[in-house]
Amino acid sequence: MENFNVAILGCGTVGSGVAKILLDMNHELVDRSGKKITLVKIVDLFPAKSASAYNLPLNLFCGGGKDLTPAEASQYIDEIIADQSIDLIVETIGGTGDFLFKVFIDALQAGKPVVTANKAMLAERGSAIFETSNANGAMLGFEAAVCGAIPVIRAISDGFAGDKVVEISGIMNGTSNYILTKMQDEGLDFDTALKMAQEAGYAEADPTLDVSGGDAGHKLCLLIKLAYGVEVDYNHLLIEGIQNIKKEDIDFANELGCNIKLICYARKMNGKIYAAVKPMMVKYDNLLSKVSGATNCVKLENKYTGHHMFVGKGAGSLETAGSIVSDIVFAAKYGYSKKMNAESDFELVDPDNFEFPYNITFSTADYPGITGLVTTAIGDELINIETVSHNRHGSNKTLFSLATMPCTLAQIKRAIGRIRAKAPNVLLDEPVILPILK
Amino acid sequence: MENFNVAILGCGTVGSGVAKILLDMNHELVDRSGKKITLVKIVDLFPAKSASAYNLPLNLFCGGGKDLTPAEASQYIDEIIADQSIDLIVETIGGTGDFLFKVFIDALQAGKPVVTANKAMLAERGSAIFETSNANGAMLGFEAAVCGAIPVIRAISDGFAGDKVVEISGIMNGTSNYILTKMQDEGLDFDTALKMAQEAGYAEADPTLDVSGGDAGHKLCLLIKLAYGVEVDYNHLLIEGIQNIKKEDIDFANELGCNIKLICYARKMNGKIYAAVKPMMVKYDNLLSKVSGATNCVKLENKYTGHHMFVGKGAGSLETAGSIVSDIVFAAKYGYSKKMNAESDFELVDPDNFEFPYNITFSTADYPGITGLVTTAIGDELINIETVSHNRHGSNKTLFSLATMPCTLAQIKRAIGRIRAKAPNVLLDEPVILPILK
Repeated sequence: MENFNVAILGCGTVGSGVAKILLDMNHELVDRSGKKITLVKIVDLFPAKSASAYNLPLNLFCGGGKDLTPAEASQYIDEIIADQSIDLIVETIGGTGDFLFKVFIDALQAGKPVVTANKAMLAERGSAIFETSNANGAMLGFEAAVCGAIPVIRAISDGFAGDKVVEISGIMNGTSNYILTKMQDEGLDFDTALKMAQEAGYAEADPTLDVSGGDAGHKLCLLIKLAYGVEVDYNHLLIEGIQNIKKEDIDFANELGCNIKLICYARKMNGKIYAAVKPMMVKYDNLLSKVSGATNCVKLENKYTGHHMFVGKGAGSLETAGSIVSDIVFAAKYGYSKKMNAESDFELVDPDNFEFPYNITFSTADYPGITGLVTTAIGDELINIETVSHNRHGSNKTLFSLATMPCTLAQIKRAIGRIRAKAPNVLLDEPVILPILK
Repeated sequence: MENFNVAILGCGTVGSGVAKILLDMNHELVDRSGKKITLVKIVDLFPAKSASAYNLPLNLFCGGGKDLTPAEASQYIDEIIADQSIDLIVETIGGTGDFLFKVFIDALQAGKPVVTANKAMLAERGSAIFETSNANGAMLGFEAAVCGAIPVIRAISDGFAGDKVVEISGIMNGTSNYILTKMQDEGLDFDTALKMAQEAGYAEADPTLDVSGGDAGHKLCLLIKLAYGVEVDYNHLLIEGIQNIKKEDIDFANELGCNIKLICYARKMNGKIYAAVKPMMVKYDNLLSKVSGATNCVKLENKYTGHHMFVGKGAGSLETAGSIVSDIVFAAKYGYSKKMNAESDFELVDPDNFEFPYNITFSTADYPGITGLVTTAIGDELINIETVSHNRHGSNKTLFSLATMPCTLAQIKRAIGRIRAKAPNVLLDEPVILPILK
């Protein structure tokens, strides 16, 4: 039986999980791939610490188990890339730095498959990496980079090879969904729910990338590339996080039969890809609204096979590692597979000119006639109104919310302009405008 | 570019969908597979009728478009199997007859990959077919055979190649789920809901295979084989359908915070596979309970990557065809892939000795003291009670229901024996015993 030797670069939460699974179920992995998959080397700065979580044997670590300087680690990585006997590299170092970028390029140029969970690197600097993978016939496995344990990459590239993805909508950041679930279920405000997420280990000390939608945006970029063959510039993707969602927004959502979720959205229509990461009000009838806690979910609407939903863990040591090991088995079993060609004629646009039903919440001064003023302005922009909420009269402001029939954000912005023109001081804050996902 | 010629045997609902997709998106299929996939021949007894749904070109049909006798069709099929220029056969004739069985064996022996949606054939006579596929290195694609559009076969064989499936629970028959949803949402009885399913085109004129659990059982056999490598004899699988579910059972389920679903269940534990198709009460917290209408859903609990759920269409022309075309692309792109070896040391058992919480509904004569009698008998079998329902006193019978903590069916049966021994005529019917799925 042919050997298939694996090296792991970076043995933190995910890398150590990969090592554990490779050792734990080696018998099955060999049986499934038809190759003698063997973990031969691990590079990590602090082997003793990294080995402890799963009791990994120290002799697998370069340097025999002693701590390494960055220069030593770098030297070992170069040796692994040059080593003809090593068949695949697992990159679980993380980050988007130049050193790591070069590791990707060098390994792929050497014809070695690379398997990674590094969504930031692939979304922000992926273009050259994918190109190098294709040019050298070296597989780039990134199942673990999008929604951890959920095999959505395999589904789109192979499970739906006989179909076309029309729409993607998903909950792709567990931290944000945990926070929104706490706000929804326990009536907490954002700051308190964030603190709970941090205490429960779901949010980093610096939660910016999670709650701002950045992490979800990385994943959406990769799914768009895979589903539509469109190279997406992460910096041009419209991304809004959940930092500004208030308890009152959730109340209005519930009144409409919705939960607020941070949604990764993309739809292919008329030669364009409409895409954004945005908080949306999701109707209870849509199963996405029921996905709670740190769970992730990807919904796909396909041309022939209709609607699909995949639910699973989006993060975690063994959860993410399981996807990496599946990519390793795939590489061992099938070798390199060319990625789809880019359909370069598709234009990426943000969905402000795409028609959603919207919910708009106005924070107004106590102003008799506000309902007439707002609904008239909306009607003047040819927007049909679906429902008007009961006003919430507070001591110094009134909240007033309405749901529209499908219209564009541009129409809504013009309507708000009309309100401001008629009554300059009546709107106390920027209105909160959330798409409604049916 | 290498040719990859495809022939379709049987051009009914599914076969004609396959032809349509192969013609409609040929450009993408060629791009994705790297081979010139071409539909070269279709065999069908009634070409004019079969071609009409999607306006398929008649010149693709063997015989040039004229109706065929069975003998002629059989002759054309033999020619296709012998034709070296044909690279893959799509079997969409259906049924488990000897003639078709021989088509599978002959084609695979000739080294031709076969792609099919025929769950009955693979579940009932699959053993020799899988063996022939492996012995001749000819792929057997059956993504379409399990839950139509849902790519669960690809997920288990490749997406979770680095993991082990612990538990399968799923809704795998759309007709039954449509009927149960109508009973639940509209308070209908079984017969009325079945009639509606037939009118809506979800149920066959003879709905036996659907409502009796047989169709779901075929799918569960295939998933067990794939997930656990265990050859399952369909005739030994415990299968109960939904024919006996009454409106009152649904009411009791709702009282416990559950919906009744027809569940395909399998769990690997202590060297055994516990498996059955059974109506179960599914807790609202379990997303399976929310899957309504003709939709299918497969839940997996994996060792490393935790819980997963896949939701999608379980039937339909293009839905099923999409899965077949995905298998065609996979065969063209990757060629043959060996199936997992059987873990022959696993024993298949029905889950009567497996611990579930259960709900038991007793139909009793008006009998003061019934609550004490029943709960004492349950307690004497060391079963802990979770809740006791309010009794429903009718004119000539009383319904009395209780939910247990996890216990075995054997324990419950012994408790019922105790009740019968104490008060021989108090139980008017067989008690309805439904596992509760959390």
